[in-house]
Amino acid sequence: MDPDLSRLDGYLADAGVDGYLVNASAEDATQRYLSGFSAPDPYTTLYTADGEAHLLVSGLEYGRAKKDARGSAERPTDYDRRAKVAEYGPTEGGHRVVAEWLADKGVDSVATPSRFPLGLADGLRSLDVAVTADHDDVVERVRAVKTEAEVDNVRAAQEANEKAMATAERMLREADPDVDGVLHLDDEVLTSERIQQEIEVTLLREGCALDETIVACGSQAADPHERGHGPIYENEAVIVDIFPRSKATGYYADMTRTFCVGEPSDTITEWYDLTEEALDAALAELEAGADGSVVHGAACDVYEDAGLPTLRADESTETGFIHSTGHGVGLDIHEYPRLSTQENELEAGMVVTVEPGLYDPEVGGVRIEDIVVVREDGYENLTRYERSLVV
Amino acid sequence: MDPDLSRLDGYLADAGVDGYLVNASAEDATQRYLSGFSAPDPYTTLYTADGEAHLLVSGLEYGRAKKDARGSAERPTDYDRRAKVAEYGPTEGGHRVVAEWLADKGVDSVATPSRFPLGLADGLRSLDVAVTADHDDVVERVRAVKTEAEVDNVRAAQEANEKAMATAERMLREADPDVDGVLHLDDEVLTSERIQQEIEVTLLREGCALDETIVACGSQAADPHERGHGPIYENEAVIVDIFPRSKATGYYADMTRTFCVGEPSDTITEWYDLTEEALDAALAELEAGADGSVVHGAACDVYEDAGLPTLRADESTETGFIHSTGHGVGLDIHEYPRLSTQENELEAGMVVTVEPGLYDPEVGGVRIEDIVVVREDGYENLTRYERSLVV
Repeated sequence: MDPDLSRLDGYLADAGVDGYLVNASAEDATQRYLSGFSAPDPYTTLYTADGEAHLLVSGLEYGRAKKDARGSAERPTDYDRRAKVAEYGPTEGGHRVVAEWLADKGVDSVATPSRFPLGLADGLRSLDVAVTADHDDVVERVRAVKTEAEVDNVRAAQEANEKAMATAERMLREADPDVDGVLHLDDEVLTSERIQQEIEVTLLREGCALDETIVACGSQAADPHERGHGPIYENEAVIVDIFPRSKATGYYADMTRTFCVGEPSDTITEWYDLTEEALDAALAELEAGADGSVVHGAACDVYEDAGLPTLRADESTETGFIHSTGHGVGLDIHEYPRLSTQENELEAGMVVTVEPGLYDPEVGGVRIEDIVVVREDGYENLTRYERSLVV
Repeated sequence: MDPDLSRLDGYLADAGVDGYLVNASAEDATQRYLSGFSAPDPYTTLYTADGEAHLLVSGLEYGRAKKDARGSAERPTDYDRRAKVAEYGPTEGGHRVVAEWLADKGVDSVATPSRFPLGLADGLRSLDVAVTADHDDVVERVRAVKTEAEVDNVRAAQEANEKAMATAERMLREADPDVDGVLHLDDEVLTSERIQQEIEVTLLREGCALDETIVACGSQAADPHERGHGPIYENEAVIVDIFPRSKATGYYADMTRTFCVGEPSDTITEWYDLTEEALDAALAELEAGADGSVVHGAACDVYEDAGLPTLRADESTETGFIHSTGHGVGLDIHEYPRLSTQENELEAGMVVTVEPGLYDPEVGGVRIEDIVVVREDGYENLTRYERSLVV
């Protein structure tokens, strides 16, 4: 699946530079996308105005890069690295290798992602290469619009995700409370950590890697990035947020459900219903040409109409709807576009999460998150998992 | 466990700058080390000459940062982010938030890691903050020398690693070849992927996350970074290289063993014996005050004396000993120091791998890797796993 890089070509022409330069490991989504290669340590990729990609990789990666990468592959040793290091030291010697490789490609001016390493940029500048940070990260914009093959990669990761979510829900359903309301399963206390582990084993067996998994109960769930730890209690809301990455393709999925074993409080029930309403209101705004801020606004409206605080209405609130409505998902878990107060025009083929939620340490947290593809006249929901609070 | 940052203090004094500035997610080891905090998206940490750490984190991470981080925590909203974005746009608005936060700490000059993001650096420069890349990455030097608590973190990850290696070895031992020499286990072909999955499930159950795991057989093993795929064959060398990261502490371990089911060829047997000899020769050079290049040289000598090519003798060789002898391990899997042709003086408390190996697509690959702590008068081997080629 070759990406459509015409937007990048246009950017280079407009910026009047010879190429786009990336230095990062394949953990960096732009690196993986442009190079068509994956290696654990940083390597350098140059995309030139003629539409060619060139890689400069360590000798250790050279064999694989020649076979697998999108473009040509060379090694520092092809540019007399050892002699340059001997003459100029490892830092300047390394910079001179890159500068000579660029010159060899006829390149003396480059744009870079905004997170390009400063040391290499300043080193190249001192060797008369013009280096400009591309603050808009054009490749992230290019990546945002997925081919159908890329959508299928997200869909496959989401299918694994739903098996993992089912594992978590099953553990909650099969658990029983003790007299203190602590859940037990198979004669042991049911903790966030136990559920996280079974989620992650399920994902591994489905070919997915994982970052952190959130299984957060009660007041822990009121902090949207708290992973959760310790016992799970009956009658409390438990947020389960899973974002696996396919090992084979590198694409992520993302989904959140909120569960309650026993009887949720009236407030949690009300919050759950409102959050489902906010999710549906946001989804209803999704289509090519819509703006992300309008989608976010639809979710905010539901909460604000119910008298609840939002970050949109009060930038300093620590309770209520305290994050944006969603974000792009692809080779990165958080990428362009944002469904937030920022203006981000949505295009067909963008994959985004829609994930309103409410938080208050006194009450707990509720979040429901689907992952969808923006289509010309609406959206396609890649999420099949049912929404249901009480397990 | 608070790190000893006196070397960083000395660096700031020598460089004549007000602080050390990091902008990265906690995946970045220097960020995690300096901030004492972990978040999945980039955040900013400032270490000032008075020994204080300050964090600038998103509202989403603010609650956790206030509780968990080493230093003070503030949010962009504390510096009127929204007004600045409205006036200057998201890029310059964001840079102005950081600049004002720096000014608030009395800082108008900073050093940064060499991989600090160029966009933010140039943005701060245009707002009259002096930003200099620290090409020697002083914090990586500080991180290289571990406290005993950090060594214990590596030791714990290595204990999990040995359980995972035992899983792999057991699967190989219990497998049987078919008439074509393909190994079978439980009535299914035994593949690299099956062994990788059981290694990774074992690690997860031991509280470790994982990057990639290498289980590479035959000619695949001749490419040191090939992860391995497809069936495992009898009479071939299988390289198993596992580098788990403790989820709780963030510290890595690293170990490689080479196994053969059946009868290894004479060449593989000879390579295995030579590699064990190279490993022991390198270990014998390890002690505080020794140089990494001498340790590497001891391994190279063994191979060169046996008439085999090394990268030291021939920078362009693609067979033989084609990588360095080892690297530091800590919050990063590959960190300072290197055991390579570079000069890196070893200090007590450094944790390094020692991992000589031989590679040739016509033969296969052999690598044996231990992880050790440099001590005043030698080293402590954190690896208990036996070395044995034939399973």
